[in-house]
Amino acid sequence: MKTMKVHMENRTSRSYEIHIGEGILDRMAMILAKNRWAGRYVIVTDSRIDSLHGERVQATLEKCDLPCERIVVEPGEAAKEIGTVLTVTEQLTALGADRQTALIALGGGVIGDLTGFAASLYMRGIGVVQVPTTLLAQVDSSIGGKTAVDTKAGKNLLGSFHQPKGVFIDIAFLRTLPDETFRSGLAEVIKYGAIEAPGLLEEMESAAGAGTLRETAFLETIITASCRIKKGIVELDEKDLGLRRILNFGHTVGHAVEAASDYRLSHGEAVAIGMVAAAGIAEQMHHLPAEDAARISAVIRAVGLPIGIPKGMDAGEILARIAMDKKREGRKVPFVLLKKLGVPFVNGGIPEEILRKTLEGMRT
Amino acid sequence: MKTMKVHMENRTSRSYEIHIGEGILDRMAMILAKNRWAGRYVIVTDSRIDSLHGERVQATLEKCDLPCERIVVEPGEAAKEIGTVLTVTEQLTALGADRQTALIALGGGVIGDLTGFAASLYMRGIGVVQVPTTLLAQVDSSIGGKTAVDTKAGKNLLGSFHQPKGVFIDIAFLRTLPDETFRSGLAEVIKYGAIEAPGLLEEMESAAGAGTLRETAFLETIITASCRIKKGIVELDEKDLGLRRILNFGHTVGHAVEAASDYRLSHGEAVAIGMVAAAGIAEQMHHLPAEDAARISAVIRAVGLPIGIPKGMDAGEILARIAMDKKREGRKVPFVLLKKLGVPFVNGGIPEEILRKTLEGMRT
Repeated sequence: MKTMKVHMENRTSRSYEIHIGEGILDRMAMILAKNRWAGRYVIVTDSRIDSLHGERVQATLEKCDLPCERIVVEPGEAAKEIGTVLTVTEQLTALGADRQTALIALGGGVIGDLTGFAASLYMRGIGVVQVPTTLLAQVDSSIGGKTAVDTKAGKNLLGSFHQPKGVFIDIAFLRTLPDETFRSGLAEVIKYGAIEAPGLLEEMESAAGAGTLRETAFLETIITASCRIKKGIVELDEKDLGLRRILNFGHTVGHAVEAASDYRLSHGEAVAIGMVAAAGIAEQMHHLPAEDAARISAVIRAVGLPIGIPKGMDAGEILARIAMDKKREGRKVPFVLLKKLGVPFVNGGIPEEILRKTLEGMRT
Repeated sequence: MKTMKVHMENRTSRSYEIHIGEGILDRMAMILAKNRWAGRYVIVTDSRIDSLHGERVQATLEKCDLPCERIVVEPGEAAKEIGTVLTVTEQLTALGADRQTALIALGGGVIGDLTGFAASLYMRGIGVVQVPTTLLAQVDSSIGGKTAVDTKAGKNLLGSFHQPKGVFIDIAFLRTLPDETFRSGLAEVIKYGAIEAPGLLEEMESAAGAGTLRETAFLETIITASCRIKKGIVELDEKDLGLRRILNFGHTVGHAVEAASDYRLSHGEAVAIGMVAAAGIAEQMHHLPAEDAARISAVIRAVGLPIGIPKGMDAGEILARIAMDKKREGRKVPFVLLKKLGVPFVNGGIPEEILRKTLEGMRT
């Protein structure tokens, strides 16, 4: 038997910048024009965002002599189905998009995932620029290059790691965001506070008290802090091999609760409930001081997110869904817990009694 | 506007080994067991190959205590449709495959592409081991990590770069290969000879004369030479940004002729015709000495591959299909030509008259 080695010790640079500010679209167009990432851009967005911002974003690029078109999909979670990816790529072919084309993901997490995934596959990968329009996407999903779509067999089952060419976070988009969608994003900011920046929890609680949660200066502060935390984690663990798991704080119970509610709970509401559960578990297992667990519940309540399991939801169903979690390894479900605020760790598996007792204690 | 950089200057090692020999499956299983690339394997193959080799390969792995299952798809080009990828990933979910699972692509180019693509997407990427069973896959598609599938909008429109964990080339598989499929692989070996190793052309011509083309020693020689050339190119240009294009020698006209024949021509027959065309163009443009062009035609004829455009095929249709080639950049179609045997270069665009004249001169 002969053996030869294919040497693939590559040094790759896929570094990119995150730009944060209010009304930064003009500057975005100039940065795109200057960097020459692509000869041509295609905006992918949903019909709701398109009617609010689509033409304006396209016009901004065209003003900088960047050829630009738009592909518009239906709004909502259904757009994350693999079928939408195929529709988008067929439209790209119809537009004559080639390897010199880049996509612009203009929208929330669904659009970001769909567009990033389509970009990672089209002609074996073209560029994507993330322009997140929801708080959730601005502080979380637009950064880090994780993309995923749903298939009949389950959510997020197919995906890729495809880092964007750049991320442009325009706070002005948040003005048109409904309160519920806005609050959903706050849950992820609370998560960053819990796992890495306890000071953020104080700032949020006092902003909630003062009614300034939606003011530009405050938004810029929490978005910048969140992006800094997310980027730091992603830089160390791009491919989700370890550290990145701490970003799942609140998400194990959260995903289960979200699914058990048949997606009537928003992602943020579900994560809020999941963080209360994770804090409760950590407290019961004598990792987390009771006052830290109480802090988490307090800030969640202060911003108007739920801290208990909705009426009528069965703890048994939540437990069954946790067991199905795709991050399971063999039989145990890894769980992100806290030693204290700002100090997360991954627990290899929680005894089912503790999980059940915690969930039952959270009934409303 | 605040700006922060996400640092992604990664040093990644995705190096892997290509193993070539006769009857190497036992050794493959031992290498898999030793390297612990996965806790569990799923073989993806087609029903034709499955009936010839499926059980045996599975049993070989199980003998080394590697849990192993099989997913069997329909044979033929249709398996490269995106729909098959979805079926395979749904079956993976049904089998409970997780991130600790790796796939084994057991088959020809279609299976290699399908399986590599499915592996690159399933849970954002799991490992794949390539076990090519055709000469074409052994010398070409199993090495280099390019994967692609077809959609309604076109062939190979969606794809990824996903390097395998290892490639195991067992020459014993070639025994069950029909003559036509075997010859199809020879076209790619001739391509390597033309672009990098003129000596290979001599060896092939004399083996064809001596009737030893299918003997093990000869096969091991040409497979090893081909893999060495392919790997050298892929190492320098993993992502197909430049150098890798020389591997398209013969493929621009080849793909067009293949499509114009409605895939009645095999890939190798089409590439053979394409190489004669490319050599003819290079000769007419005074790049390639006439005797070098004649050498290429001679070896193609010697191994039983076609050197002319099939009767009834329209030069106009071939030209139209070349213009649609997905590698087009703006209006020009880049063409791989030769300065002499072993010295390829990429031409930015061929005048249509020369292309037409060459094709018309190749009528049979």
